[in-house]
Amino acid sequence: SSTAVAVTPATPLKTAEMLRDAALKDDVAFDITEGLTTEVGQRMAGTEAEARARDWAVAKLKSLGFKNVRVETFDMPVWVRGEEKAEIVAPFPQKLTLAALGNSGATPPEGLRAEVIGFDSLAEFQAAHDALVKGKIVFVSHGMVPTQDGSGYGYYGAARRQGPSIASRKGAAAIVIRSIGTDHHRNPHTGVQSWAEGVTPIPAAALSIPDAEQLQRILKRAGNRPVTMHLTLTPRNIGIQQSGNVIAEVPGRDPKAPVVLAACHLDSWDLATGAFDDAAGCGITAAAAKRVMDHGQPLRTIRVVWFGAEEVGLFGGLDYMRKHPNEHAVIAESDFGADRVWRFDSRVAQTAQPVVQDIARALAPLGIAQGFTDQAGGSDIGPMAASGVPTMELQQDGTRYFDIHHTPDDTLDKIDPEQLRQNVAAWTAMLSLTSNAAVEFGPMPPVQR
Amino acid sequence: SSTAVAVTPATPLKTAEMLRDAALKDDVAFDITEGLTTEVGQRMAGTEAEARARDWAVAKLKSLGFKNVRVETFDMPVWVRGEEKAEIVAPFPQKLTLAALGNSGATPPEGLRAEVIGFDSLAEFQAAHDALVKGKIVFVSHGMVPTQDGSGYGYYGAARRQGPSIASRKGAAAIVIRSIGTDHHRNPHTGVQSWAEGVTPIPAAALSIPDAEQLQRILKRAGNRPVTMHLTLTPRNIGIQQSGNVIAEVPGRDPKAPVVLAACHLDSWDLATGAFDDAAGCGITAAAAKRVMDHGQPLRTIRVVWFGAEEVGLFGGLDYMRKHPNEHAVIAESDFGADRVWRFDSRVAQTAQPVVQDIARALAPLGIAQGFTDQAGGSDIGPMAASGVPTMELQQDGTRYFDIHHTPDDTLDKIDPEQLRQNVAAWTAMLSLTSNAAVEFGPMPPVQR
Ligand SMILES: [Zn+2]
Ligand SMILES: [Zn+2]
Ligand SMILES: [Zn+2]
Ligand SMILES: [Zn+2]
Repeated sequence: SSTAVAVTPATPLKTAEMLRDAALKDDVAFDITEGLTTEVGQRMAGTEAEARARDWAVAKLKSLGFKNVRVETFDMPVWVRGEEKAEIVAPFPQKLTLAALGNSGATPPEGLRAEVIGFDSLAEFQAAHDALVKGKIVFVSHGMVPTQDGSGYGYYGAARRQGPSIASRKGAAAIVIRSIGTDHHRNPHTGVQSWAEGVTPIPAAALSIPDAEQLQRILKRAGNRPVTMHLTLTPRNIGIQQSGNVIAEVPGRDPKAPVVLAACHLDSWDLATGAFDDAAGCGITAAAAKRVMDHGQPLRTIRVVWFGAEEVGLFGGLDYMRKHPNEHAVIAESDFGADRVWRFDSRVAQTAQPVVQDIARALAPLGIAQGFTDQAGGSDIGPMAASGVPTMELQQDGTRYFDIHHTPDDTLDKIDPEQLRQNVAAWTAMLSLTSNAAVEFGPMPPVQR
Repeated sequence: SSTAVAVTPATPLKTAEMLRDAALKDDVAFDITEGLTTEVGQRMAGTEAEARARDWAVAKLKSLGFKNVRVETFDMPVWVRGEEKAEIVAPFPQKLTLAALGNSGATPPEGLRAEVIGFDSLAEFQAAHDALVKGKIVFVSHGMVPTQDGSGYGYYGAARRQGPSIASRKGAAAIVIRSIGTDHHRNPHTGVQSWAEGVTPIPAAALSIPDAEQLQRILKRAGNRPVTMHLTLTPRNIGIQQSGNVIAEVPGRDPKAPVVLAACHLDSWDLATGAFDDAAGCGITAAAAKRVMDHGQPLRTIRVVWFGAEEVGLFGGLDYMRKHPNEHAVIAESDFGADRVWRFDSRVAQTAQPVVQDIARALAPLGIAQGFTDQAGGSDIGPMAASGVPTMELQQDGTRYFDIHHTPDDTLDKIDPEQLRQNVAAWTAMLSLTSNAAVEFGPMPPVQR
C-alpha cells in the first residue's frame, strides 16, 4: 500500500504476540505428531521401536533447521508384555479384557486359576485381613471421574502404583485392578508400577473399565458361589537395554547464558501410537521453538529435549539431570495430551516476575488464566523442578485425558488440530519471552515434600 | 381418600396409557439385560454359550410368569473365530487391530505376507482392474457417518457384505475393510458376510476405525514404496451345530385368535456381551409383555420370541417362519439398541387403522411421532414382514448405534436406563392395544422389491 505506516519499535511482548498469532495457523506440530505416530507407531522404551523413533526424531529436527541435534544414550532395564488373557471359569464363564501393568510378574505359561476377591477401593483392600486374601486373585476397583486438572490421577492411581506391592505382601496370587481411567471402552489402561523394597513380583494387570464393572456384577450376582478366574500373563524382563534423549537447539546470541528447556517425551506405551502421550507434546514444543528460531536468533539458547523412557520410570529425565546440572534459566514440559491450555503456572525468582507478567498478558487472549506463581512441574523435568530449577507450566485441559491415557485408544484421531494450535501459540509466546529475557530466573529453593 | 371419585370405564386406549406410564418406572428390562450379559456374556450362535443363554432365558421367562415357555431347536453351520493379527512389515513396521468377518477364510497358520492396495470406497475398488489387485491384500475404506435412522448401514455396509466376494473374484489374497461403524475406538466391528455363488473364501477382516485411518496415512506417507502386511487369520468352520428359538407366551382369552409377536434375538457376536445387540431388545419386549400380562389376560395371545442365530444369517427367524405360518395378527421386533424410540411405523390392513391411530396417540407423549403407515420391518421378522404378515416397528434412535455395533464395546455400560424405560413404555402401549384389538390386521400383499 502507498499509505505511510508509523513503525513502532518491537518490544519483546509485541514480538511474542505477533508470533503467537501466527502460531494459530501452525501445521508443524500436527505434522510431527502424525509423522511420529504413523511412521514409527508405538515406541516402547528400550526397544528397537524407540531406537527407530530416535532416528526419526533426529532426521525430523534437523530438517526443521535445529542445530546441535544429537542423542544422549543411557542404559535401563526393560520389561516387555507377553500373552495376556483372563477368563471367568465359574460361575459365569466368560473372557475379560486386561493388560499387564509395567513390571508385572508372570503366571505359569498355562496360567493360574484362583478365586477372585473384590474390593471397592484401595483403602478397603488395605484394611482387609491377609488371611482373606492369601492365594486369591485380588480385584481392586475405584471411582475415578474426569477432572480438568487431572488431579484424580494421583489419588486413584494409588491402586496401580501401590496395589500390586500390597497384594504381594498380603500373599495374593495376583492382582487385577479397574483401569486408572475415566472412559467406558474395552481398552485397558496400562502404566508403570514398581515393586516396593523386598516384595516378590506377582502378576498384576488392569481390566478395561467395562470389564471391571462386569467383574463387580459377576461377584454380586454370584452370591455365595466362589468366582474363579483363569489368568495368564507372560511378560518378561529382557535385561539392560539402551534408550536415549534426543536434543536439538536454537543457539542463542549469548552462548554463556543459561538455556530455556522445552521438553516432551519420545517414548510411548506399547498398546498404541501415543499421539496424546506424548507425540503431541513433542510436536508442540518443537513447533513453538521453530517459530522463535525462524523469527531471528534469541538471546538465550532454546534447548528442545525429547526424553526417552519416561513411561517406565523417568529414566531419560534422570539421566539428563545428571549430565546437565546448572545449565538452565527456566524449564518447561508438555506431557498432558493436546487439548487446550487453560492455566499458566510458574515458579521463578522475583527478578523474573516482569517476564511472568508479560507471558500472562500474552496468554490471556488465548483463554489462559494465570494460576500458581509458586508451583510448577512436569513429568521428565519433575526431579529438576523439585531440586529448585526455575519452572513454568502450561496446564492443558485434562477432562478427556484419562479416557485415552495408556490405552490402545491413544491414536492420532484423538488430536483436535485447533486445540493443538492453541498449545503451539501459548508455547511460542512463552519461549519467545523467556529466551529473550536478560533477567535471572533463579535458582529457587528445593521443593519441600 | 374419602372423596368419591367418578370411575370412567376403561377404554383400551386409557388402559394402554395407564400401563405405559407405569412402565416408565420399569426395572424388568434392565434386569434382563444385565442378567443375560453378566451371567451368560457373549453367546455366539450355535456354540455352547448360546445354549447356556437358552437355558438362562427359559428359567428367566418362567420366573417372570410367562406360559408355554419352550425352545424350538434347529441346526445350522457354525463358523468360529481363531487367531487374528495384522502387522505392517514395511516401510513403517507396526501392529494393527482387526477382527475377522463372519465366514472369513483362513490364512496359513503362519499368516500370509502381501502388498496392500488401498481404495477409498467399494465403488473405487469395483472399478479397479483385476491385474492391479491380484495377489494383494485389498484395503477398502469408506466414509460412514452416524444417522438417526441408521440408514448408512445399508449403503456403507456393502463394503463388508460384498467386498470379500468381489476381492476373491478379482484374485486378491485377502481383504481388510474399514469397520462398518461410526466411532473412533480401537475396537473392530465384526459382522456376517456370505460368499457369493461359486466364490472361493479368502481371509476377510475389519480394521478398527483408528487402524483403518492409520493404514490410509501409511499408504500416503509410503509414497512409491510398497506397503507390506503380514496377516494371520485362523477361523474355522466347525460344522452343523444346534441353535434354537426361545418362545414364551401370555395366553389370550381367545386361543384361536391370531397372535401378537414380540421379538428380539438372543444370540450375540462373540466379541462382547451384546447388551445393545440385542439383550436390550429381549429385555424391552419381555418387560412390556409382562406388564400387559400382569394387568389381566388380553384378548389375543402375546408370543415373546427370543430368536437364535440372528447375527450369522437369520437362521432362527427363517426356522420359525417355516414352523409357524399363518398364526400372526401382527409382528414386531426390537433390535436396534436401547436408545429412545422416536418413530412409529406400521404396515397393517385398513381395518386395523383405528388401532394404529390409538397406538400413535398413546406414543405421542413419549416423544414418538407417527412415521410410515405402509412400511415396517425388523431383523428376524424381516422375511415374514416381506411375505405380507402385518408388521409394526418402533424405530429407536440409532445415532450412536454404529459406534458400538458388533464391537467389543457392546457392553452393559452403554445402556441408558431412562431411555430403556421409554422403550418399555412404548412397547407396553403397543402390545396392550394390539393384543386387545378384535380387528383384522391383514394379511398384506407381499413386499415388492
Ligand atoms: Zn506422558
Ligand atoms: Zn504416560
Ligand atoms: Zn441385532
Ligand atoms: Zn447384530
